[in-house]
This record gives sequence, C-alpha cells and structure tokens, in this order.
Amino acid sequence: MMQHSFVQPDFERAKRKGVPEIIYAESKSAEQSCEIARLFLGRNGRAILSRVSPEQEAQLRVLARDMSAEGTEIAFEWYEAARMAVLRRPKGVVPRTGGRVGILSAGTSDLPAAQEAAVVCREMGCEVTTSIDVGVAGLHRLFGPLAKMLEERPKGAEVDVLIVAAGMDGALPSVVSGLADVPVIGLPTAVGYGLGGQGKAALYSMLQTCAPGMAVVNIGNGVGAAAMAGLIANRAAAARRAAQEETGDE
Amino acid sequence: MMQHSFVQPDFERAKRKGVPEIIYAESKSAEQSCEIARLFLGRNGRAILSRVSPEQEAQLRVLARDMSAEGTEIAFEWYEAARMAVLRRPKGVVPRTGGRVGILSAGTSDLPAAQEAAVVCREMGCEVTTSIDVGVAGLHRLFGPLAKMLEERPKGAEVDVLIVAAGMDGALPSVVSGLADVPVIGLPTAVGYGLGGQGKAALYSMLQTCAPGMAVVNIGNGVGAAAMAGLIANRAAAARRAAQEETGDE
Amino acid sequence: MMQHSFVQPDFERAKRKGVPEIIYAESKSAEQSCEIARLFLGRNGRAILSRVSPEQEAQLRVLARDMSAEGTEIAFEWYEAARMAVLRRPKGVVPRTGGRVGILSAGTSDLPAAQEAAVVCREMGCEVTTSIDVGVAGLHRLFGPLAKMLEERPKGAEVDVLIVAAGMDGALPSVVSGLADVPVIGLPTAVGYGLGGQGKAALYSMLQTCAPGMAVVNIGNGVGAAAMAGLIANRAAAARRAAQEETGDE
Amino acid sequence: MMQHSFVQPDFERAKRKGVPEIIYAESKSAEQSCEIARLFLGRNGRAILSRVSPEQEAQLRVLARDMSAEGTEIAFEWYEAARMAVLRRPKGVVPRTGGRVGILSAGTSDLPAAQEAAVVCREMGCEVTTSIDVGVAGLHRLFGPLAKMLEERPKGAEVDVLIVAAGMDGALPSVVSGLADVPVIGLPTAVGYGLGGQGKAALYSMLQTCAPGMAVVNIGNGVGAAAMAGLIANRAAAARRAAQEETGDE
Amino acid sequence: MMQHSFVQPDFERAKRKGVPEIIYAESKSAEQSCEIARLFLGRNGRAILSRVSPEQEAQLRVLARDMSAEGTEIAFEWYEAARMAVLRRPKGVVPRTGGRVGILSAGTSDLPAAQEAAVVCREMGCEVTTSIDVGVAGLHRLFGPLAKMLEERPKGAEVDVLIVAAGMDGALPSVVSGLADVPVIGLPTAVGYGLGGQGKAALYSMLQTCAPGMAVVNIGNGVGAAAMAGLIANRAAAARRAAQEETGDE
Amino acid sequence: MMQHSFVQPDFERAKRKGVPEIIYAESKSAEQSCEIARLFLGRNGRAILSRVSPEQEAQLRVLARDMSAEGTEIAFEWYEAARMAVLRRPKGVVPRTGGRVGILSAGTSDLPAAQEAAVVCREMGCEVTTSIDVGVAGLHRLFGPLAKMLEERPKGAEVDVLIVAAGMDGALPSVVSGLADVPVIGLPTAVGYGLGGQGKAALYSMLQTCAPGMAVVNIGNGVGAAAMAGLIANRAAAARRAAQEETGDE
Amino acid sequence: MMQHSFVQPDFERAKRKGVPEIIYAESKSAEQSCEIARLFLGRNGRAILSRVSPEQEAQLRVLARDMSAEGTEIAFEWYEAARMAVLRRPKGVVPRTGGRVGILSAGTSDLPAAQEAAVVCREMGCEVTTSIDVGVAGLHRLFGPLAKMLEERPKGAEVDVLIVAAGMDGALPSVVSGLADVPVIGLPTAVGYGLGGQGKAALYSMLQTCAPGMAVVNIGNGVGAAAMAGLIANRAAAARRAAQEETGDE
Amino acid sequence: MMQHSFVQPDFERAKRKGVPEIIYAESKSAEQSCEIARLFLGRNGRAILSRVSPEQEAQLRVLARDMSAEGTEIAFEWYEAARMAVLRRPKGVVPRTGGRVGILSAGTSDLPAAQEAAVVCREMGCEVTTSIDVGVAGLHRLFGPLAKMLEERPKGAEVDVLIVAAGMDGALPSVVSGLADVPVIGLPTAVGYGLGGQGKAALYSMLQTCAPGMAVVNIGNGVGAAAMAGLIANRAAAARRAAQEETGDE
Repeated sequence: MMQHSFVQPDFERAKRKGVPEIIYAESKSAEQSCEIARLFLGRNGRAILSRVSPEQEAQLRVLARDMSAEGTEIAFEWYEAARMAVLRRPKGVVPRTGGRVGILSAGTSDLPAAQEAAVVCREMGCEVTTSIDVGVAGLHRLFGPLAKMLEERPKGAEVDVLIVAAGMDGALPSVVSGLADVPVIGLPTAVGYGLGGQGKAALYSMLQTCAPGMAVVNIGNGVGAAAMAGLIANRAAAARRAAQEETGDE
Repeated sequence: MMQHSFVQPDFERAKRKGVPEIIYAESKSAEQSCEIARLFLGRNGRAILSRVSPEQEAQLRVLARDMSAEGTEIAFEWYEAARMAVLRRPKGVVPRTGGRVGILSAGTSDLPAAQEAAVVCREMGCEVTTSIDVGVAGLHRLFGPLAKMLEERPKGAEVDVLIVAAGMDGALPSVVSGLADVPVIGLPTAVGYGLGGQGKAALYSMLQTCAPGMAVVNIGNGVGAAAMAGLIANRAAAARRAAQEETGDE
Repeated sequence: MMQHSFVQPDFERAKRKGVPEIIYAESKSAEQSCEIARLFLGRNGRAILSRVSPEQEAQLRVLARDMSAEGTEIAFEWYEAARMAVLRRPKGVVPRTGGRVGILSAGTSDLPAAQEAAVVCREMGCEVTTSIDVGVAGLHRLFGPLAKMLEERPKGAEVDVLIVAAGMDGALPSVVSGLADVPVIGLPTAVGYGLGGQGKAALYSMLQTCAPGMAVVNIGNGVGAAAMAGLIANRAAAARRAAQEETGDE
Repeated sequence: MMQHSFVQPDFERAKRKGVPEIIYAESKSAEQSCEIARLFLGRNGRAILSRVSPEQEAQLRVLARDMSAEGTEIAFEWYEAARMAVLRRPKGVVPRTGGRVGILSAGTSDLPAAQEAAVVCREMGCEVTTSIDVGVAGLHRLFGPLAKMLEERPKGAEVDVLIVAAGMDGALPSVVSGLADVPVIGLPTAVGYGLGGQGKAALYSMLQTCAPGMAVVNIGNGVGAAAMAGLIANRAAAARRAAQEETGDE
Repeated sequence: MMQHSFVQPDFERAKRKGVPEIIYAESKSAEQSCEIARLFLGRNGRAILSRVSPEQEAQLRVLARDMSAEGTEIAFEWYEAARMAVLRRPKGVVPRTGGRVGILSAGTSDLPAAQEAAVVCREMGCEVTTSIDVGVAGLHRLFGPLAKMLEERPKGAEVDVLIVAAGMDGALPSVVSGLADVPVIGLPTAVGYGLGGQGKAALYSMLQTCAPGMAVVNIGNGVGAAAMAGLIANRAAAARRAAQEETGDE
Repeated sequence: MMQHSFVQPDFERAKRKGVPEIIYAESKSAEQSCEIARLFLGRNGRAILSRVSPEQEAQLRVLARDMSAEGTEIAFEWYEAARMAVLRRPKGVVPRTGGRVGILSAGTSDLPAAQEAAVVCREMGCEVTTSIDVGVAGLHRLFGPLAKMLEERPKGAEVDVLIVAAGMDGALPSVVSGLADVPVIGLPTAVGYGLGGQGKAALYSMLQTCAPGMAVVNIGNGVGAAAMAGLIANRAAAARRAAQEETGDE
Repeated sequence: MMQHSFVQPDFERAKRKGVPEIIYAESKSAEQSCEIARLFLGRNGRAILSRVSPEQEAQLRVLARDMSAEGTEIAFEWYEAARMAVLRRPKGVVPRTGGRVGILSAGTSDLPAAQEAAVVCREMGCEVTTSIDVGVAGLHRLFGPLAKMLEERPKGAEVDVLIVAAGMDGALPSVVSGLADVPVIGLPTAVGYGLGGQGKAALYSMLQTCAPGMAVVNIGNGVGAAAMAGLIANRAAAARRAAQEETGDE
Repeated sequence: MMQHSFVQPDFERAKRKGVPEIIYAESKSAEQSCEIARLFLGRNGRAILSRVSPEQEAQLRVLARDMSAEGTEIAFEWYEAARMAVLRRPKGVVPRTGGRVGILSAGTSDLPAAQEAAVVCREMGCEVTTSIDVGVAGLHRLFGPLAKMLEERPKGAEVDVLIVAAGMDGALPSVVSGLADVPVIGLPTAVGYGLGGQGKAALYSMLQTCAPGMAVVNIGNGVGAAAMAGLIANRAAAARRAAQEETGDE
C-alpha cells in the first residue's frame, strides 16, 4: 500500500473541534487528492475537498464510480461555483443539528465564497438560508431577504448567525451589522481592481466597521467563515435540543 | 515693507480657476499667516485660512481688531470644528451663485472635514445643506435628510452635488451613491485605528465603490472636496442663471 | 426559459441613478454575457458590456446577427482599445443631452481607459471631445487641445467637465487642474513598472494634487470616471435645456 | 438646555442590536463626555465610556459625586488598565444572562485590550473567566487555564466562546483554536516593534490561522471582540433559559 | 571552448565561506545550467542546483548519462519536492562533519522549503533529522518529534540547531523557540492567501516572536536557512572533533 | 583629552570623494555636536552640520564665540529654513569651482530641503541659482526662471544640473525634465497628508517619470541631492577649467 | 498611408532634450512597432526599441531586410539580454561625444538592465566600459574593474559617471559610492524573492545609502539610468571638446 | 506582600532555554519595574532590564542603594547607550562559558542596538569583541577589525558568531557575510528617514542578502540577536569545554 510519510490526516478533528477536516486540494496532485479522499471515506464515510481543479474533479468522479462498482456505494456531490466536492458513503450522512446560518452576498462575483461557506455549514449539520446579489448599489433588495431571516420568524427561530460576503467596497457587512441582532461574520472576497483590489479594501472596511457585533475572516476564506458560523449555530442548537429533550415529546 | 521672497500669493486664482486661494496655515508661523492674510485682504478683500492653530487664531483676531481700529472694517469669522478663519472686508462678501451643495457625514468625528468643506463651498457662493451623524451603524437616520436634499424638492431644485464624509469603514458614500442621482464626492476622514486606520480603509472602500457616480479626494481634504463640488454646482447654477436672464422677469 | 437565480439585473438604474447599468463581462462566461445582454436588449433596447474577451466578442456578434435574422434589428458596435461592446435596437438610441465632456490622455497606453470613458459618456448622451498623447514629457502638445475645449469656445460653451487619464507619474491631471476652470476627474491607468507601478504612483500623485478642483476614481476605472462626468455634464445641460425650453423656439 | 446638534445618541441600540452603546471618549472633550454620560444615565440608567483620559476620569468622578449629592445615586466604576468608566443608577444594573465568555491573553501588555473586552462582556450580562500571560513563550502555562474553561466543566457548561488577545507574533489564538471546540475570537493588540509592529503581525497571523473556527477583530478593538462574544454567548444562554423555563422549577 | 563572459563561478566559496555555491537555476537556460554544472563537476567534483525546471532536469540527466558514458562516472540525485539536483563524481562525496540539524515543518505544503534546506545541510556534511506536518492546528503531534531531537538524546548529542518551516500563521517557530534550548532558524514559506498571504504573515510573525533564541531568513529561502544552520552545526561539531582527536582512539 | 571611541570622523572624505562630510546632528547631543565640530575645525578649517536643533544652534554659537575670543577666528553661518550651521576658519573658505547648479522648488513648504541642497552645493564650490514656489498649480511662473537658468544663457553657460524639489503630487520635476536638456535630480519633500503623504506620492511619481533624464534621492535628502549635483557640476567645471588653463591667459 | 491618430512620435526629442526617443515596444503590436520604427528611420535615420518580444524581433528583422532589398540600406542590431533592437541607416550613425560611462552589475541576473543601459548610452554617443558579476558576495572581484575605470586612468580621463545595477540586497551601489569620486546612478533590478523581492529591497537600500553622491532610478529602468548618465557624461565631454577646439591641433 | 496577578515571571527560563529573562521596562511603571527586579534578585541573584527610562533608572539606583544599606549587597550596572540596567548580588555573577561573539556596527547611531546585544551576550557568559562605525561609506575601516576577530586568531579561536548592526542601507551585514566563515546575525536598526526609513530598508536588504550564511532579527531587537548569538556560541563553547575536560590537565 502507498505510504503517506508527508501527510498525517487529522481524522479526529470533527470530533475534537466540531469542524470537519476539509482537504485543501489546491496544492495537491489529482492522485494525492484521490488517495486522501479514499482514506477519509474509509475512516469517516465522507471526504470534503475545496479548491478542486477540473482534472481533480474528473478523477474524483472516476473514484466514486469505481468504488461504487466495487460495491461500496459512494455519492458524488459537486458544487460548481465553489468548486467543492463531497464524496459520501451512507454512513457519512450528517445528522441535522438544528443550527441555522444565514448567508448574504453583495454581488454575483461573491458567489464562490458564499457557496463554499454554505457547503461547509451544511456539512456541519446546519440549515442554511442564502440570498445573493443584495449589495449597497441597490440597497432596496437587502431588506426583504434580511427580514425573512430575522424579524419575520418567531422569536428564537431566527438564524443564529449571519455570514455576509462582499468584495470591492465591502460595505454590505457593516450595513447588515447595523441592522441585525445576531452575530455577523464578514467574509471579504477577492473582487475588485486597482488600489485596494483583490479584496483588500473589503477586508479593511470590515475591520473598521462602525457597527459592533461583527468579526471577520481572511479574503476568500469561505471555509473559515463557515467553521466559525457552524460552531456558533451548533452551540445554540445544542442548548435548544437539550431543552427539547428535557421537555420530552416535542 | 517686508519682503516675501519665498511666497508668491496667487491672487488671480479665484478668477482663473473659479476656486479661491486657501492659505494652508499648518506650515507657517503666526506672523507669516497674518502677513499673507493682510496681503489678500488688501487685494481681494478676503483671506481664507485653514488648519489654523490656537496661536495663529489669536493673532489673526488681533489683526482684525487692529485693522478695524485703524479704519478698515474687518469681520473675523471663526469655525471651531474645522479650525478655519475667514477675514473679510465689506468688498469681500461673496455673491450667491445659486449653486447647491449637500454635505452628509457618517459620524460626529467627521465634523471637522465636513465643516471645512462647507465653509469653502459657501466662500464659492454656494448654498450648503448639511446633515451630520447619519452613518450605516444606524441607517434609518439617513433616509430623511437625504430625501430633504433630493426627492422632496421640486425637479431641478435638488442639490447639484453631494459631499459625503466618512472615516472608519467608509461605507456611507457607497450607500448614498447607490441611492442618489447627483454626482457624489467621497471625502474620507482620518478616523479609525489599527489596520486601515487613519482613513485608509475609508479611502480604499470609496475607490472600490460598486455604485458608479462617485469620485474621491484624499483623506481629510475638505478643501479639495469643496473645490470640486463648488465647480460642479456653480456650473449648473450658471446655466440656470443664464436661463433666468433670458426669460427675463423672474 | 433559463433561470437567473444569481443575477438580478438592475433595469431601473439608468432611470433611478442617471447612469446606465454596464455589464462587467470579466467574471462571466460567454454564454452568461449573451444571456444578460439579451435581457437588457429586451427591456431597455440596449446592452453595454465592458472588459469583453475575444471569445465573448465573437458570441455577442453571433447573437446580434441571429437576432437580426429573426427580425429584431440589432446594431453591434465594437470599441477595440477599450474592448467594449454595445448592442442596440432602434429604441435603444440615446438622445443627446447637450452635456459636454472633454477627455485628455497623457500617453498612448492610456487609450483603453480613455476610450472606455468616452463610450460610457456617449451612452449617457454626452458630446465627447478627446485628445490623446499630450503628457508632460512634451508639454507643448497640451495647450492647443486644451484651449480648443475651453478658452477658444464661447463663454458657457466650454466642456462641462474634463477627464484626464494618466499612468506612470500621473502628473498631467495636476497640470490640467492648475489651468482649467471646470471640474477635473483624474483617471489613473495601470501603466508603469517597478515601485509605484501599475498606476499606484499615478493615483497617489492625483490624490495629492496641489491644484484644487479635481477628484479621482480608482486605477483603470474608465466607467466610474464617465459616470461621474456624465452626471456633472448632464446636470448643467439640463439647466441649459430648461432655459431653452422656456425661451421657446431655439 | 444644551443643544446637541452634532451628536445623536443611539439610546435604542442595546434593545435593537443586543449590544449597548459604548461612548468612545477619545475624540471628545471632558465636558462633552460628561454631558453624554448624563444623557445616557437619564435614559438608560447606565453610561459606559472607553478610552477615558485622566482629565475625563476626574470630571466623571465629580459628575457621579454631584449627582449622588443631588439625590440621584450614581455608582462610579473604574477599570484602570482598560481606562474604562461605567456610571450606573440602581436601575442600570445588568441582569445576568447566563452567557459565558472566556478571555485569555498572551502577555501582560495585552491586559488593556483584554480588560476592555471583559468589561463590555459583563455589561452585556455575561459571566467572564479570565487568564492573563499564558502566551507561547511558556506554553505550559496555557493548558491549565484552558482546561478550567472547557474540559474540566460538565458537558454544556463550558464557556460559550473564547476571546484570545495577543500582540507581537499573535501565535496564541491559533494554538488555542487548534485545541478548543468553541468559537474563538482573535483580538490582536498593538504590542510589538519594528516590521509588523503595533499589532500588524498579530492581525496578519490570526487572519492566516491554519486552525479553523476563529474570526478576528481589528487591532486593540476590545469592544468589538466583546460585542461579538456577547452576542454568541447570549444566544446560547437564551436557548438554555428557554429550556429551563419550560422544564419549570430548575 | 564556450566563453562565459557574464558568469564567474565562485569555486572557492565552500573553502572560504564553509558554504558550497548553489547554482540558482531559475533565471538560466537549460544549456547554461548544464554548462555551469559541468564546470563545477570539473573543479569540485560536485554541482548543486536549486529551482530546477522539468526541462533543466531532463537535460541534466542527459548530461550525467553522457559524461558517465564517456568514462567520468556521474551520480545524478534528484529531490522532487524541492526540485533540486545534485550531480556528483566520486571525489565529490561530502565527508560527514558530525554537525546535527533538526528540521520541522508546520504543514505538507512547507515540504519544498524544508527539503531544500535538508539537501543543502547534507551537502554541508551535516546529519539531518526531519519531521513534517506538526503545526499548531494539531499541536499534540509536535511534542514527540521534538523530544526525539532534544530531550531524549544524551546531553550534548541533541541537534545543534533547528530549522522550523511554516507558512500561513507562522506560529510553529515561536512555539518551538519557547520550548527548545538550541538556536532556532525560522523559515517562512510562501503558503497562504489573502492579506498576509504568500508567507508575509508568517515572516512578520517570526520577526515578532516573543520567544527569544530565533532568527529568520526570507520567505522560501531554504538554501539560506541551511547555510546558517550548517555553519552553526559544523562549528559545534568541529569543537567536538577536536576533543575526540585530542583524546585519541575514540 | 576626551576620547571618541564610537566616532571616527572621515576627515579625508572631501578629498577622496569630492563631497565634504556633513555632520548629521539629529541623533547627537549638543555636547557631541560641538566636540565633533571642533575636531573638523581643527583638521579642515570647516564644520558643516545639518538638522541642527535650537539647543545645538545655541551651543554652536557659543563655541564659535569662545574660540574667536581665544584667538582662533571662527565665522558662524546659520541657515534658518534648512536649520544648517557652517563654522569656518579663514582656511576653511571654499574656492569657487565654476560648477553651476540650478534649484527649483514647487512650493514654499519645500524650502527647507531646497535650502539644505543649496548650502551643500555652495560648500562644494558651486554657484547656485534658486527659484522657489514655481509649482504646477500655477505653471506660468515656471517658464521665466527656467529660461534664466537655461536658454537665456550663452551656449555652455547654462546650469550644469537642476535640482527640483517638490512634495505632494511631485509633478514639477517631471515637467521640468520634459523641458530641460541638462540632468535633473528629483528631490521629494515630506509635504502632503493622507494617502501618499509625507512625500511618498512625490517620490513614487518621480520614480515613474515619463520624461527620461532624471534620477532621484530619498524624501527630504537635500544633502544627497546636493552631493550628486555638486559632483556632476564640478566634473563639467573641471573640464572647463582645464580648457581655460590650456588656452592660457583667460 | 496609415493614420496614426493615437501616436505622436517626438522626433525632436534628441535635439531638444539630448536624449533620443526610445520606442517602448511592450504595449504595442508587432505591426505598430514596425510602423513607428519606419517613421523614425525616415526622419532620423535610426529607430531604437526596448522590451522587444520575439515576434516583434522577427518582424523587425524582416522590415530591415525588405527595406534593404528596396534600396534603403538598414542595419539591424540586436541585443539579446536587454531584448533591444536598433535599426539604422548610414545617416543614423551616432558621432562619438567623448562622454565616458562605467557600468557595473552585482550579478549575472542584472545583465538585462545593465545591457539596456549600455545600449542607450552608446546611442547617446558615449564610450561605455562594463563589468558584470562583481557583487558583495565576493567583494574581491570589484576592486580590479573599479580601478580600471577610475584610479588607473590619467587624471581627467576617468569615466564621467558610474551606473551600478543590483537586485536582491542592493548593497553594491552603496559600496561603490563610498569608494568612487564620480557621480553614481543606482539601478535596482527586479531580482529577488519574498519580502522586498522584485527589486524593492534593492531600491529601498539605494535610497537609504549612507554614502552620498548617488541618485537612483526606478526598478529595471535601464533606459532612465542611461539617459541620466549620458547627459552627465556628454556635458563634461562638451567642455573637454570646447577646450580641445580652442587649443587647436589636438 | 504585593500581589502580581498579571505578571508571571519566568524564573526558569535561563535554565530551560539557555537565555535569561530580560525585563522589558518600556510598558511598565517605575514601581512595577523595581518590584519585578526585586523578585528576580531574590530568586536568581540578578535582574536585567532593557529600555529603561530616566525615571526608572533613578528608582532602580535607589533600590540598589537601599537593599545594600539593608545588608544585601547589590551592584548596579548601567549602560547609557542601550539604556539597560543590571542589578546583581554576588551569587548573580555569570560564569564565563568560553563562547565568543563579535559585534560590528555600521554607524554611530547603531550603537544602542549594538550595546544592547553586547550586554545580553555577556550576561549569557560570552566574551564579546566590538567594533563600531565601520560601515560601507568608508569600507577600508572594516577589514582590520574583522581580521582581528577571524583570520588573525588561531584556528578554532575565532569568534563563534558575528552580530552586524546596520540601519539606513543595511549593506554592511551582506558585505561581512560575503567575507566571513562564521554564522552572521543581521541586526537592522531604526536609523534612516523617508522611504524605507526607520530600519525597513535595512531589514529588507538583509533578508535579500546574496551572501548565504546570515539570518536576521527584527529592527532594533538587540536582545533577540544576542539570544541567538549566545546560544550559538555557548553550544560551540560547551563542546570545547567537554574536550578540555576529557583531555584533563588543561
């Protein structure tokens, strides 16, 4: 069997940290990606890969097909905008935690980061509500989706946390943080050109927010935003479940 | 008479450029500031000074009092937040041009830059409407003042241009530019700390605005914002005046 | 019909903001670009696309030809330097507003940004006068074109606003702003190498201008410069038209 | 009564956002600080001020003494390291929410930011556990305090969120995020000299964390870290309270 | 014979400096690389090349094969991760100095820099012990390998110096420097994205270490880290050898 | 006699390099400054000090007075704007070399740097022509002074080199370099605020000049600009003197 | 004939400025480059092109061959390292001015910039002496070549100016400036990686030189360094020629 | 007894790490500094303080005098340039290790950093040889002192490591590293102005050194340079001592 002297997969992370290991495919060959995916499928019944290249995607599809043909049923899920792949055996299905995450994005170009965050949140068991292209250039489009996530829900049934993705001016997260009473995670995206381009202005603006109740992750780090959001939502959901368990048959 | 070998005041700027010369007092002694003010009072009947120190302020007051005592009536106008001074003889009164400038600021700390812009716009003959502390942390406070400057006025009687001052996240100008149909001048202010502090995040965010119809000046450059706004408003006003003159008895 | 869950075209922008929506093609596939262009052609009779790749250009040409063959006459206009495309039905012809914009560029390499600005200004109904390659390395070439835009015209018939594009040292806009009595928009271009290259020195220099009456947009943002200039010129032109309408048969 | 044309205190923020308004005293005079504090005491029974200068501190003490002498009992609480003041009437006492926040700091110099965060968390009703000077130069000191906040507590009784303050290399938050299964807020402090000094290296390092489950605030922004942590902890606590209310007499 | 007017190989460097000349292949053609390698083989019996492209690798293999076929036995050694090549004649074998270097890396992506350092240390005659993927996201994996290099060895038989490679947050070297009593060389790697990416955050964090006893080299400079480490280890080893020589038959 | 273990004055620099040693007083105490000045007066008959504080100035005046009273005649020359001092014995008078340097400055605030350059050029024996406040905000003021330095002089009698000092936008040196046929030295000054302030924009713009024939020194480095200019002018002058000597009786 | 509405070649630059126009080919098509070259050949008998791509090189060779075949003899000169081309008719031969320029480079990788400078100096009529690969890693190699340019020549026959090209640490120009008594032009090159890479460290270090008598140009700007050096050398040479003409029969 | 809830002195650092704890006085009050000094004197017989203010110095002197008067003999050692203090009881005398460190500085202004490094090396038991003001502006002064530290000593008796302090251009460490065959630690100092000032250019240049065998610490970090150097030298010295012990009667 192939030796992995330079990789030590952290199979226990999901248990220890509450965040599953995400295989960052960017710096790996297609063969390495498949091999590591196979290891995780064996141990945890699930392999999650981010930043997957077309060539890696093709080989991962082959892997899923071949393993299925050999009798180990593997579902292959593909997220085009985020370029993420999830391979899953039946035992790898994630139970719903009851955590609730809302995701907003300022523009269409922020979709890859927003989708990456959505996929990871779902793999942490959360329910995800998304609304895209609601940035400050046409602010009237924000209020409806935001109300659907917050005020229009019964007290206690709002989303537990918001992820707000934005590039360019990065203004949307501050606007949302000024309106919402749940924690906000600012997710700057590498959108923009010239001075402050590639997400730098967006990140700076979020760090300087005048609306407290927001923290940020690095540019394009949808995985990091989701890990934070998932931990927040799942802790609140755990308390709700504890309550339900005690009150019994709800 | 004292010789000014290293200063060549540009007495003709107002006529040539449509923007009066503003004496930048920061790098000058109190004596130099007074002497240059006296020169402008003699030639143009008006001296405008920005970034005036307490010591300079005191000596300029004395200058105005002494000249008045000597028979040349000098009005001394002082703007505390902007630390600007205007000394004026009767002939230095600026005729109203009919130009209209709206000024918005995100927070109380942006007041010095906003007031600096307001003073210069008025010295260019414009009518100025101002609304302070309407930033995105409490966005509901923006809509009223903005409507008073734009939609609630008769068609053609709106402000001709908006100056929007903001520090920290610099989000307000983008929000306003997404809502308003007049040109917007973003005026970043040196408010904020840490990464992107001292106005850098605000400037970057404005340069990256996703709402076209905005241009920016440098951090804290209220004079520059006003010069641009005044030129814009006065050109529109000149066309309106030309119309009124042709139609006669208005 | 194809679903556009992640794009919400802002058909009303031209009406609300006075600036038409420009489709930024860079982050879109050729198919997406064509589909969005088709939507705008249906609603507004016009689609404007910037940063168009050769492949997108080819497919847009096919789209125009096919739609024409199907009976909907579509004109395809192509601007090579700016790589912009305008598709237009007869109802998409822009009425002249009477606004006047002058565009100057320092070097030949600034042409793409200058042309991008010119196209957008014309799509806002403005008359555009352009002069290329008049930078400070041979300053004598500036004075003629500038005079043609300003002093040599009758009072009130000058251009309403100047866009000055420059890369490298970014010195031309400051020189022009010291000479002209109309508002100047500095448009830095991504020309230059080494420290301060890619337009950074140009932008910094424009932000630091010692000649008030200028505001700037981000590096290479011809669309933004044009939106600002178009709003300025069209407001002055509206006042002129109001005058003419009142005086009657002119 | 004194007029506040340039300040519009947001009395409703605590209710709307779940985060109380913190008066940032740095850019205000001692008189202004006292006046705003008095307004908040009147409306909300509590005034919280950050970045308080010695002169402001002295006048606020006088204010509290004088108001008490006039019959309105005012408690004055002073936090030396953070230089924060809380003035409180009996009605301004914050009910405990049951939210739990853990705060760790790498060095003694990080104390001001850590204390600022602790004060704000307590004013949001949270229980705060703190451990100072447990940075990576002597890592053995970390494990005990961290275990007291997490593993040594009964399941569900751990802290809900950790704030980890660090300057210089900013390594501690990443180490903690690799060990803890609750969300971590990285709070960089302006400690350090030379390249990457004043907290820049710390912030960069936290943004680049290889241990997902962490988000960050700007350098020295103890208030922002606390607002985020308080929202997270109070949401979990609300679910716990809901459970307890349903189960009745617990 | 081919003329080398623009290259002056420093054949004496190994003798003068104690560090062999490493041919930096990146800016050279395949032909130039081969020619310089041949020169060094002739003079020193060994040629070491770093940053070798696939094309250069192929031609160097041919060179080794051809020279061997011509009767000069050349061993070709290839290091895939580092993309380094060593060509060696029998006389080019490096005698063991007794110097001992430990190399740790935070993640798998740091392998190229770590391997580059290991190769150069070995070419300086040192014994190298390596442990990969022991970063702070799973700190428990560090203690074992570190103990094998330090405490578990007899007094005086520890490694003489540690090289610690890390990208992203760059936290590992500070953690190691807080634990180890030998000099530590921080080797930042160009791993990471967004703000502080490409190794910048890692380098900043290492420069700001709060654990004295560490110095750093530039991002990705495995050769430089090894040169420093080799000099340190070999000086200690020389003293040990001197001792052994004096005591005789050991 | 006092020992100078940490200072090794380079008495031979003027002879070896053609540039006199300038004592940089900023990091020295008043006593140290006086002591070093005394050493240079003894050896070279002249001491030149830059960045002199008021306290240092006072003590240097005392030193000159006391030495004169003791019989060694010392002239004390003071340059207020540059804050430079020259102490001189009769033997320290610099012979005229015939080198010619022209110095231009954009604004009044650039005077300190311009004067520093002028003083050092004169101490290198050059003839200096200066014109202040001729920047691009009022470009018409440039042409006269420039013509006096160049075209209006007989062929060969122009200045040998131009130093052009400018802060803020730094546009003047590029304009001059486009017009002049002598080498230009760009001297950025620490004038300006906000982004690109403190001379950064000026330096960047000069490095990016589109008018070849210019090189630059660091911000505020009047001494460096003068050293370069003096070497250039004196080399040309030496050739002229050689010519005159050969032709004899001039 | 083809129209050049966007290019205005400055045919008079060589006469006006003493520096020939260099066609910067990087941003031009092969056709445009050939057309402009043809224009200059017609007017000035010479066309100089920098940053020439392989495709442009091929077409320029064809142009020279074709024009020669048509009876206009064109010499094609190619400089591989600098990627520069000079096309020349007999009348385009540059007369020797007698100016003398020395060029030193720190490493082999600095050759392109050094050669670019050498070509332009020669096209300005100067005699150029070059020495490559004499950087501080092996300082002993510097002294010989430097002495050949300076001390070993008769008084007055030294090079008039030195260009010193260096990347990475940029230390060589400061070392040379400390040794030489002629003006030094620092030419940073885009060599180096990691922090301060791509020539940034080299430029910074040169701007900070502690050895006065040096000015710098931007990274990789061999043309700019040569223009400055050529003006310096030619001015000294003109004085020498004037001397020789007066003394007659030399 | 006073409680130190926020300080946990690391009394065991010297034993565990081989580097003594240095009390960084900058962020502490005079009282705190004295109290911590007293604690270390009690435990380790020695207290080392860096960045000591005049007020702290005065109180530490009083502390030493008072403790001596009370019968505990305390020696107070003061290093003016570095502003460091060492308080010592007889048992706090450091035994000589035999480690040898050479320290060079480029200029007089680098003295504080160089002296800080020297003091710490001596407190680690090393023998220190220092040479100040030997920078590249007068390179001839370097060779003598360097030879005294290296070649002129018997084989094996050279210094074990060199610290080279330099600000401004930071060229000296690279020059030294090209000449010396011992490890070099580059110590940039906060000397220099304008772009790359405050030590940034020096640090960048050292990181980019083309002479392998050097590593660097942050700007002004004399303590860090010394800790690294002391570990290197003491390890070599330990091997030498082991040799001597084995050979016996030396």
